[in-house]
Order: sequence, then C-alpha cells, then structure tokens
Amino acid sequence: MPSLDLTASSIELTRALCDIESVSGNERALADAIEAALAGCAHLELVRDGDAIVARTNLGRSHRVVIAGHIDTVPVNGNLPTRFEGEDLVGRGTVDMKAGVAVQLKLAAELTEPTVDVTWIWYDHEEVAADLNGLGRLARNRPDLLTGDFAILGEPTNALVEGGCNGTLRVDVTTSGLRAHSARSWVGRNAIHGAAPILEILAAYTPREVEVDGLVYRESLNAVGISGGVAGNVIPDECTVAINYRFAPSSSGEQAIEHVRTLFADIPDSQFTVVDLAEGAWPGLDAPLAQEFLAAVGGTAMPKYGWTDVARFSALGIPAVNYGPGDPLLAHADDERVDTAQITECERGLRAWLTGP
Amino acid sequence: MPSLDLTASSIELTRALCDIESVSGNERALADAIEAALAGCAHLELVRDGDAIVARTNLGRSHRVVIAGHIDTVPVNGNLPTRFEGEDLVGRGTVDMKAGVAVQLKLAAELTEPTVDVTWIWYDHEEVAADLNGLGRLARNRPDLLTGDFAILGEPTNALVEGGCNGTLRVDVTTSGLRAHSARSWVGRNAIHGAAPILEILAAYTPREVEVDGLVYRESLNAVGISGGVAGNVIPDECTVAINYRFAPSSSGEQAIEHVRTLFADIPDSQFTVVDLAEGAWPGLDAPLAQEFLAAVGGTAMPKYGWTDVARFSALGIPAVNYGPGDPLLAHADDERVDTAQITECERGLRAWLTGP
Repeated sequence: MPSLDLTASSIELTRALCDIESVSGNERALADAIEAALAGCAHLELVRDGDAIVARTNLGRSHRVVIAGHIDTVPVNGNLPTRFEGEDLVGRGTVDMKAGVAVQLKLAAELTEPTVDVTWIWYDHEEVAADLNGLGRLARNRPDLLTGDFAILGEPTNALVEGGCNGTLRVDVTTSGLRAHSARSWVGRNAIHGAAPILEILAAYTPREVEVDGLVYRESLNAVGISGGVAGNVIPDECTVAINYRFAPSSSGEQAIEHVRTLFADIPDSQFTVVDLAEGAWPGLDAPLAQEFLAAVGGTAMPKYGWTDVARFSALGIPAVNYGPGDPLLAHADDERVDTAQITECERGLRAWLTGP
Repeated sequence: MPSLDLTASSIELTRALCDIESVSGNERALADAIEAALAGCAHLELVRDGDAIVARTNLGRSHRVVIAGHIDTVPVNGNLPTRFEGEDLVGRGTVDMKAGVAVQLKLAAELTEPTVDVTWIWYDHEEVAADLNGLGRLARNRPDLLTGDFAILGEPTNALVEGGCNGTLRVDVTTSGLRAHSARSWVGRNAIHGAAPILEILAAYTPREVEVDGLVYRESLNAVGISGGVAGNVIPDECTVAINYRFAPSSSGEQAIEHVRTLFADIPDSQFTVVDLAEGAWPGLDAPLAQEFLAAVGGTAMPKYGWTDVARFSALGIPAVNYGPGDPLLAHADDERVDTAQITECERGLRAWLTGP
C-alpha cells in the first residue's frame, strides 16, 4: 500500500497524492493511504464510509466547521506521474483538487488544538454522476457527520475565497417537423430550419449579472449541443438543442426553469424538457464565522461561477465557501497544473484562521 | 433457381420479381432468373456484365432507344413477400422499381419487331454508392452498349413522363469557436450560436422555380443534418450544418456550388466544404423521338425532382426521360405499394410507342 508522509510540505504532499491515481471509482488505494496516515493522530476521531474518510476533533469548542475535499479525479490523459515545471506542479489532480486536499490533510494532522472543532471530510465520486457523490452518500448515511456552523470546500479558487455558487439547469428544446425526401422538400417541414429562432435567441441573449450578498454572479445561457438529421436526402423531422443555464443563487431552480421556458415559449412546434437541475448556493458571507475566516485569510471574496458541492451544505442550511489552490480554468485540462505558491498560500490562510489571532 | 414467366401479366410479373429479394449486393439470383427467362428469345442479343443484363434487338431500324431499370432495392423491412391490398400490390420493390422492370421485361420478350431498335438494360447496385452503380459500370466496360438516340428509365413517375432531373449538391458549413467550461462561458466562443445565421438563411430562403425546355423545375435548399457539442458543461467549439441543394438542370454543378457558397459567404468563422455533387439532366424533350414517345404515351410531361440515372444518359449526350409505375413518394417507404392500374397503364404506353401508330 502506498504511504503518505503528512509531515512533508503541502507541495510534496500534493505530489504524493496525485501520484496515487484515483480516477472516480478507483479511490480505494488513496482512501486507504489517507486512513492509514491519520491513524496515529490521537486528536482525531476517524470514520470511514466507502472511500470517504471523516476525521473529527472533539474539543468542545463553541463552533464546528466542516472542511472538505474530494479525492477523485477525471480520467488521466498521459498526465501522470506529476512533474515540476518551474514553480508549477503539472499533472492530473494537481488543481482539481489534490492540492486542496494536501493542505487539509497536513493541517488536520498537525493542528491538534484548532480554535474551532473541525470535521475534515475527504470523499469519493465527485467527478461523476451526482447520485454517486460521496458527500451526498455521507449526508444520507451519517447526516450527523455533516453538521456544522460553517463549511469550507477546497475546490480550486486561485487561493481566493469564492462564496456560494451559481445553479445549473439543463434543458432540451426540440423542434418537430415532417419527414420527406429532400428532392421534394415542400412535402415536408424542416425541423432544423425550425430551430433557427432558438439559436437566434441564444446568440442575442445578454446574460444577467446579479448581486447576492455583495457578490456579483455572472450568469450564462448556452447551447451545449445540437443534433438533427436522418440522412443526406431526407428532410429532418426533429432537431434538439441542449441548453445549459447557469443562474445566480438568488434564483430558485423553479425560477430558473421559468426564465428559460419563457424565452423559448413562442418557438413553433417545439417541446421544452428539463434534463437536470442543481440549485445554486448562497454565499453565506454574512455569517460571523465566514467573516472571521475572510479576515484571517485576507483578500476580497469573489463569486463562484461553477457549481460545486458547497450547494450541498447550502441545502443543509450551512453557510459554505470555496477556498483552494489552483486555477479553476485548468481543472480537467490535459495540461492541468498548479502554481505551488498558491498551495503555500492556502496552507497559510487556513492555518491562520484555525490557530486564531 | 427461381424462374420467371414472362407471359404472365405485368402485375403478376411485378409480384414474382419482388418476391425474389434483391437488396443491393444480392442481385445474383434475380439476374440469373432474368437471363434464363430471356434465353429463349431469338430476337434478343444477350450480354451479361456482373449482375447487369443487356438485351438488344438488331433489326436495322433507323433509331435505337435504350430502356433501362435497376433490379436492386433498398433493404427489406418486414415488407416481403408482397401481398395485394385492393388494387395495390404492397411490398419492397413494388414502386422502386420492379413494376417498371416487369413492364420492360414483358415487352422485351413479346415485341419481336418494335418500330425502333431497343437496348433493354436491367442493372444492379443503383440504391448504393454511385461508384458501384451497374449502369455506370456498363458505361465504363461496354460503352458501345449504351449508345442510342433516346433513353427511357423506368423509375416511378406515377405513369407520367418526367423529363430530366434536378442536380443534387451536398455541402457542409462548419462554424468554429473556442471551447470553455459552460460555467465561465465568456472565456469561450459558442460555435452553435455561431450557426444561428446559417439556419436563418436556410429558413428564409425562397427556392427558385426554373423553366427548362418548357418544364418548371422546383429547386430546394435544406439542412439535412446538424451536429455540435462536446459535453453538457462545455461551450462547443464546432458546429456543422449539412446542406442539400437540389438545383435545376439548367445550372451546372459549378454554378450550384457558387450559388450556395455565396449564400453563406458572410458567416463569421465558418468553413464551406463540398461533400458530393451530381449534375442534373436536361429534359431533352425537344428530341423528335421524345416527341413521338410523348404523343404515343399521352399526357403532359412533368419535371423530375429527384436525381436519377437519366443524368448518366444526359452526360453521354442521350436525351432521357423517366417513365414508370408507382408514386415516387412511396419509394423506400416501409409501406411501399404500387397502384396496379399504373403498371397496366405503363405497359400500354410503352407498347403503343414501340408498336407504332
């Protein structure tokens, strides 16, 4: 079994975590190594659920915070093992999100007496279908382990605090027509031509910018897929545009659906289908613990655009923010790479908050 | 080996031809049966080339006409063996185009002294890739067999004379963009949104109606396919619209390409690719033999919209028309069916012409 040295620097620890490949569904070896590395920490109560590890302090502090990160990655694409390039550590998982996990693991082992009680959670299956998500499974199996007054998710934020997250809605708008031979097209009705106004609306749409708790969330509305056509000599009778709407956390999922439905309500011979929906998360930066955290970390909070598991905490009524090393634009990229200075910075920020002023 | 009785009615013969399944590539048994059935006709010189059969009279007439039909069909879909439903014969091949072949075969055997010399051709592989086409193969292997002053193709025309055919051009217009995560869409450029003006142009396009030799050819321009999209959370960097242009035979293929290229010349970040092109065929109805044929058959000539092998004769400088039983809108349909009255009518028309006034 590969072993982890939690006394190494958080940069070295990031590298070790990445080099234990853990594409979603294959987290066992890494979860075993984490469990073994923490086994000697007398100040932590360990719970294992599948390939999720929960490590809790029980110091009787007046507040408890949850600090979490997922240990799985998207598939490797010739980008493991990791390597250094100047100040960057390059390879799968360096950004999303083993650098964040490394900082958390190091501090979990080292800080025997944090100023708040901490529930550290490292979990599996974040990069795949939502029903497999390890944090969701924990919430179902052991809801008691997720309780807390504030939560921090170590997703990449360029070492800035990013509050809440946009919600995400996927819908299909499908036009229907009448099939015919393309040599006698006037006998049919072309469903792809019928989709023209859908694309016009999307191309002309100006996304909103919505202020929530002092953060400005930028929305977006995009076709993410289009398909139609039967054969090279057939007038197509169906065309489907797949649309993704990222909406500010001040809108509910229902409101988001209504917004998009209204946009396409007048497309002739069309059908509107909701494919999936994930509510956004309020930034929750008005919570006192969040204010203290912000002060300790320094800098200004930013909105999070991508949907993250902070929404799971938000749904449980726990204010939650994202805070981790790495540029989110490089997540999932083949040249995924983390600026190691951000790893050190996040370690400093979290340590400053957990050890108090 | 199945045998064919060429003294049966052309309706019964249609049924027998259909019930010998001959999906493209599997024409051997039917070609063998046709060859065997004609072997006893002393007035016909038989030539076999692959699964094509050529049967020629050599009466020293002042004119020679080519009368041709393909013996293959598109795939069977639970619609064989044939059955009668009222006046209809139902099943694969009844329209496209064994009813036409039946009329031709019956007259080939029966008319020992037609008023013109006739080159009867029944050929393979019409319903598949153009380079496999049996008539094209004959034109390469034995160009002497295709010479003539006039040609008649027995493709379904509802027993009317349809002159020439529209040409057909397929192009792809592809827009390109820049991939990005859909949560931060402003980092990318959406290629599907970029395709909006392509669909607008297609939806707004008014096809021309072009008079050629007194026949009005209706053109059409249609998207026959569209595809784009990478994943539900990715701004797509490519979208391709597949377009089919059916153009009047007075336009050359080059002119057709220029017409379509010009329509889409101003689409930003787009590429225009010609996928395939088949020239149209002039109706050739001003030829004296064509006039005589029209007079004998009766009725008014119509334009042919779908591309057919008449274009191969047209390319050889031989005026050619389509004339056969069956509704072309039912060709390739699962409920393919021919009105048997049209079979009888085509037999009458062809016989009237070939036996003279």
